[in-house]
Amino acid sequence: MNEADIGKYAFGVDIGGTTVKLGLFDRDAHVLDKWEIPTVKDNEGAAILPDIAESIRSKMKEKSILLDEVVGVGVGAPGAVDDEGVMVNGAVNLGWGVFNLSNTLNGYLHLPVESANDANVAAYGEMWQGGGKGYKNLVAVTLGTGVGGGIIVNGKILNGAVGGAGEIGHIHIEDNEPEQCGCKNRGCLEQYASATGIVRLAKRRLEKDASPSILREGGELTAKAVFDAVKAGDVVAVEIAQRFGEYLGKGLAAVADVVNPEVFVIGGGVSKAGEILLSYIEPAFQKYVFPACRGAKFTLATLGNDAGIYGAAGLILR
Amino acid sequence: MNEADIGKYAFGVDIGGTTVKLGLFDRDAHVLDKWEIPTVKDNEGAAILPDIAESIRSKMKEKSILLDEVVGVGVGAPGAVDDEGVMVNGAVNLGWGVFNLSNTLNGYLHLPVESANDANVAAYGEMWQGGGKGYKNLVAVTLGTGVGGGIIVNGKILNGAVGGAGEIGHIHIEDNEPEQCGCKNRGCLEQYASATGIVRLAKRRLEKDASPSILREGGELTAKAVFDAVKAGDVVAVEIAQRFGEYLGKGLAAVADVVNPEVFVIGGGVSKAGEILLSYIEPAFQKYVFPACRGAKFTLATLGNDAGIYGAAGLILR
Repeated sequence: MNEADIGKYAFGVDIGGTTVKLGLFDRDAHVLDKWEIPTVKDNEGAAILPDIAESIRSKMKEKSILLDEVVGVGVGAPGAVDDEGVMVNGAVNLGWGVFNLSNTLNGYLHLPVESANDANVAAYGEMWQGGGKGYKNLVAVTLGTGVGGGIIVNGKILNGAVGGAGEIGHIHIEDNEPEQCGCKNRGCLEQYASATGIVRLAKRRLEKDASPSILREGGELTAKAVFDAVKAGDVVAVEIAQRFGEYLGKGLAAVADVVNPEVFVIGGGVSKAGEILLSYIEPAFQKYVFPACRGAKFTLATLGNDAGIYGAAGLILR
Repeated sequence: MNEADIGKYAFGVDIGGTTVKLGLFDRDAHVLDKWEIPTVKDNEGAAILPDIAESIRSKMKEKSILLDEVVGVGVGAPGAVDDEGVMVNGAVNLGWGVFNLSNTLNGYLHLPVESANDANVAAYGEMWQGGGKGYKNLVAVTLGTGVGGGIIVNGKILNGAVGGAGEIGHIHIEDNEPEQCGCKNRGCLEQYASATGIVRLAKRRLEKDASPSILREGGELTAKAVFDAVKAGDVVAVEIAQRFGEYLGKGLAAVADVVNPEVFVIGGGVSKAGEILLSYIEPAFQKYVFPACRGAKFTLATLGNDAGIYGAAGLILR
């Protein structure tokens, strides 16, 4: 092994409730290999970190990688993580209580470990190698089952006091909401701008009157169906998309007034609708945002499900 | 001069539209002297920085302070300032265009200069020596003619992409507002939670019906009058304070969802009402904020008009 080989590689780890995604990266941000292992949640998730350590050691053996050649391991976890790597509220989805994730994994692997919240790590990945490449002040917005957010300020993840920063899906956006959000509040952004939120908006619109729409033709009512109908010129679907855009644009305007990002990177399942999605968000954003913060760009995420392993590796390599 | 005297002092400068406030601080954050000079706005404010430099040089002469004994000069200015000290949009109130404030003042004084937006600098002062002492993640809220904000993350000012971070007074909070805000939008937090906003809320409430109130007894209708009436048990004034608290609590909940601060430090003229003010803000905040961000404390600012010079000096000494 010569000098140039020292610190050649890093691992990115994205811990989910069902599987752990892992990636082996070189210094130039190329993913050399990626794989998954199951997340074993028995016994309060006691096996998760040993399993990850074992999987990384196996991969190093398989590829003949020495300990000296690995710069470190980055980890994204589904819960609040503070700047020191502590899971400040544990992780309900994994059965974890409060402990220092970075130090514990370091104890198993004898490699430097950096940890952060999974949504924040995905945001970091999009900044490092995805839709937000070239920016250092960005907000990543994940429109999936819920609405997640990750905020990057000056190239660093914003964790906040207890790792609760970037919870943009729970900004209060509607005073007249009869149903509860998953968080028990009412009128959260997530209730209108997530995949399930869009379906709720669609149902409410369809129930309002009998105007004709592709969406009444018996297919499953999903966020994808709504945006497919928008692309087909369906008038009712366009109204639904406008309501969605009005809510999300208003919520992101509040985010911009607070952190003034250069760019919003929109990802998650809903973002598969493509650029047309942005055309419903941006006009509402411009209507509500403070003039000095109007310059924020909107772009689509590009890393998909790999944003987590990229961002985790980026914590080490960037 | 012995070794211990090197880097003994710093100056804090708070540039306002009418006067420039200056302070001489020792290393232990004591203000040794403070004074003001007029802000001369003629010729696009060309004299402002030379006047500040001259005033600092005079003070050094008066106190027999040598250049070596001064660590540097911190400056707060009324406009967006980026991380490099550039007034990115100039400063309308001073007649300034776009230029690098830090470098320019350094050119006059041959001392290190750090600059930031005045609201952010005041927030920094409250963190360093004021109501937020001991915290490193805080949001300072100034309830004056408008509603200003300054955000501190991990002990550093959050400027954002173009110095527009912390514009919390312009978070959209009300969809049904007929009047325009100063920023030309409608329904900004500032329209309800500033001193003038509270007067608007009071007028609207008093016009709604004829219920008796101290506020109808002919004195000038001000934010102070409203909170004095609240303290006297005036039912109508209490309703106005509740509306104010509902708006501000809702707005600050959105801020907490985004940056998850440890503490909100409430200052500005309206905060002279005292602790009673917080009793109207906190319940609404708790109602709207995401559960993980609920731990944020509320406290009153303590530095008053000196927050600016303290924060500016803190940029150098902290």
